[in-house]
Amino acid sequence: MAQKPSIPKGTRDFSPQEMVRRNYIFDTIKLVFQRYGYLPIETPAMENLETLTGKYGDEGDKLIYKIRSNKNLLEKYPTLRDCNCLKTVYNYDWIPMASDKALRYDLTVPFARYVVQHQNEITFPFKRYQIQPVWRADNPQKGRYREFFQCDADVIGSNSLINEVELTQMIDDVFTTLNVPVVIKINNRKILSGIAEIVGAADKMIDIATAIDKYDKIGDVGVNKELSEKGFSNEQIEKLEQVFLATSDRIILGPGYDGKDKNLVRLELLREHQEYRSSEIFLEGVKELEAVFKTIIDLGLTSANVEFDITLARGLNYYTGAIFEVKANKGTLTSSICGGGRYDDLTGIFGLPNMSGVGISFGADRIYDVLNELDLYPDTVSASTKLLFVTFGKDEQNYCLPLLAKVRKAGINSEIYPDANAKMKKQMSYADDKKISFVVIVGGDEMASGELTLKNMTSGKQEKIKIEKIIEKLK
Amino acid sequence: MAQKPSIPKGTRDFSPQEMVRRNYIFDTIKLVFQRYGYLPIETPAMENLETLTGKYGDEGDKLIYKIRSNKNLLEKYPTLRDCNCLKTVYNYDWIPMASDKALRYDLTVPFARYVVQHQNEITFPFKRYQIQPVWRADNPQKGRYREFFQCDADVIGSNSLINEVELTQMIDDVFTTLNVPVVIKINNRKILSGIAEIVGAADKMIDIATAIDKYDKIGDVGVNKELSEKGFSNEQIEKLEQVFLATSDRIILGPGYDGKDKNLVRLELLREHQEYRSSEIFLEGVKELEAVFKTIIDLGLTSANVEFDITLARGLNYYTGAIFEVKANKGTLTSSICGGGRYDDLTGIFGLPNMSGVGISFGADRIYDVLNELDLYPDTVSASTKLLFVTFGKDEQNYCLPLLAKVRKAGINSEIYPDANAKMKKQMSYADDKKISFVVIVGGDEMASGELTLKNMTSGKQEKIKIEKIIEKLK
Repeated sequence: MAQKPSIPKGTRDFSPQEMVRRNYIFDTIKLVFQRYGYLPIETPAMENLETLTGKYGDEGDKLIYKIRSNKNLLEKYPTLRDCNCLKTVYNYDWIPMASDKALRYDLTVPFARYVVQHQNEITFPFKRYQIQPVWRADNPQKGRYREFFQCDADVIGSNSLINEVELTQMIDDVFTTLNVPVVIKINNRKILSGIAEIVGAADKMIDIATAIDKYDKIGDVGVNKELSEKGFSNEQIEKLEQVFLATSDRIILGPGYDGKDKNLVRLELLREHQEYRSSEIFLEGVKELEAVFKTIIDLGLTSANVEFDITLARGLNYYTGAIFEVKANKGTLTSSICGGGRYDDLTGIFGLPNMSGVGISFGADRIYDVLNELDLYPDTVSASTKLLFVTFGKDEQNYCLPLLAKVRKAGINSEIYPDANAKMKKQMSYADDKKISFVVIVGGDEMASGELTLKNMTSGKQEKIKIEKIIEKLK
Repeated sequence: MAQKPSIPKGTRDFSPQEMVRRNYIFDTIKLVFQRYGYLPIETPAMENLETLTGKYGDEGDKLIYKIRSNKNLLEKYPTLRDCNCLKTVYNYDWIPMASDKALRYDLTVPFARYVVQHQNEITFPFKRYQIQPVWRADNPQKGRYREFFQCDADVIGSNSLINEVELTQMIDDVFTTLNVPVVIKINNRKILSGIAEIVGAADKMIDIATAIDKYDKIGDVGVNKELSEKGFSNEQIEKLEQVFLATSDRIILGPGYDGKDKNLVRLELLREHQEYRSSEIFLEGVKELEAVFKTIIDLGLTSANVEFDITLARGLNYYTGAIFEVKANKGTLTSSICGGGRYDDLTGIFGLPNMSGVGISFGADRIYDVLNELDLYPDTVSASTKLLFVTFGKDEQNYCLPLLAKVRKAGINSEIYPDANAKMKKQMSYADDKKISFVVIVGGDEMASGELTLKNMTSGKQEKIKIEKIIEKLK
């Protein structure tokens, strides 16, 4: 019996049409990465299991796809053949050994591993980009896949805030080219650390961050409730509210601030906040962001809006400085399409401490969904061949082959319908289905005169024309 | 303790320098594929296990990387907790369940699965290309990896021999562009079937093919010995020798054949061979090849040599017509760098019978090894940024940022050394290491006059020049 073919849940095939659209996104991102001096690397799909485990939290660890060993249990423990309890429940011939390899879960940890492993060949600061698929044994749902592509740019070995500025410019460049209006939210983990310190819960930074990360979704009442459940006192919660209020639109848009940049006003309010300015790390975070925002304002962005958002936390533990999150300002897809941040010790786990880095990751699959929804592909993003030779038999086909070679030599993507005896209708509908722009029809008359019939498949217009002119026209 | 990072045996990291060289190969192949009307698809890294098993023979099946289930045995069989024999040999908490997914082993089977699954969306003949990594749990050795890239082009749903001709042209185009002299060996499985039929061993076609496939390595004595061990009689072996002899250079280069095309002479000898011409399938194979070779000769290849080789068999069972194998004619690497053939029923296993197809697969990793050995990369294949801004402090950096934005807007890949206080020597050696072509040095004088110092890092020459002129020069 033939198998009814399918693919694993949460994975996808990409047709030529989809590939062309996806490549348009990848190429746009790649071009911007290169424009800013980032160079490509690739790492293997499989990493040693110990490279990955313990880096993504307990929840993340569970989502790592492990490779099965090709050895089974019996090969190593032949005595198990006599184990009755095992025999009764399971076809134990197929119990595989645990394996020491796994599929990468993201590109950041493999990058950290790469930097440490190749530190002697690398020139720092090292600006690399990486565009590859990652795999997560997640529950598939709309916009969430088990195989998806990340497009990461990171610079490691530099503390300079110029990097944060340039990453913001890169985000702006990518989404300007893709014609997607976005808001880039920026915060700094040092500000969050300072807040935790001031409210006397330095060890609860993650709890605070996790709660305020939901500010957008559940509002202040929800956040306060969650904090209370996590054991924060009313006094602590009140102090936390103060700092959020200080940066709220209610304050910012009041009298005295007309015309000033909202982000800089917010940051200034924090820098001078009676309660919080006593925390050194808090002030450091504020000053870093002020420097970043000032430079961004000086240089100007083309289309993106940039916004200081003190409630932005981002889940990943390794961030220590600036954090970024990008959302589309149009359409129904509200999830983040790009994110990133600064980490002071990512490579420490692999034995190379004190290497500060900062990076961003574009979620190609979500960007793809946004572009599809808003139908933002330029007309030039089309899959197909430019020209098809339609013939009426073996002689005509033989006549066309050298012409076809000429057309191809001129750099024009072209083909000939392979089956010489196919009906004209079949050949034309092939051109139609494949969205081929032009068709050359060659019969006896055309062979005699050398004047070929060229049909424009969009307008339907036909003309008699020599092959040299066709090449000129389509080149 | 920090882990000493490494990657699994048989896998590789690719540095920026390596990536650029590999992309040169991929881009060359891609361009040729598109030039001939092939369109890209991609399939997931993971396929359902049953899609892959049973397609590659017993040996192949063993090399498939299976994904481990994230469930373990105890979750499904909690009573095993009391199983003493198991407890004593193994930490059974970690015995994973068998899983139903595996990593793809090649691109051909996923392609067949794709065609059947999407048959209603596809226009036939379907010309697709696919460039993706595949994984095999093989024993790693020189030139053999556990993760490597295949670049496949196949056309399915067409019997026309034009496809065989075009695939040969494509091979020629790729290796002409890459500057690698190659020989394309061509045979036809029907000829091999005919031979098996004539010697009265139609069921032993694979044995014969496997033996004669070694002709190059072990010579006629070795092949005859192997055939004898497989149970072929002396009479059979003698008959087999006849057919190989009929196409040997000894015969071909004898008197009476001067100036004729060697391949056509060989095929003619077979077509008229006293013994073999009685086999219909044999003659069919010969005639197919004659048609292919004649058209190839008429159209002409640019640099590749094409050679009919009756000893070429290729291991894969699904081939039924023409078969191809390509080897470099220069350098020490003798393994095949491209291969392919026609298959009459590849999609039959998935429920879509009678779909003839033909395809080729470029082994990107072996081509990479050949190009590296022969040092065949053009000078233009270089990784890096074009221009670096070198500054002496924060003021200079701020002065340069808008200029840098201008340069980038003009499409020039450029960067600024991020740490404003780094010593000039450090910044210059960064440019050196990264092989950046030009450096702009900006200090107080330059800021005052707007005449920047541009240094050509190859020639060492310096000049004073305005930013607009720099853009003109580098664009």
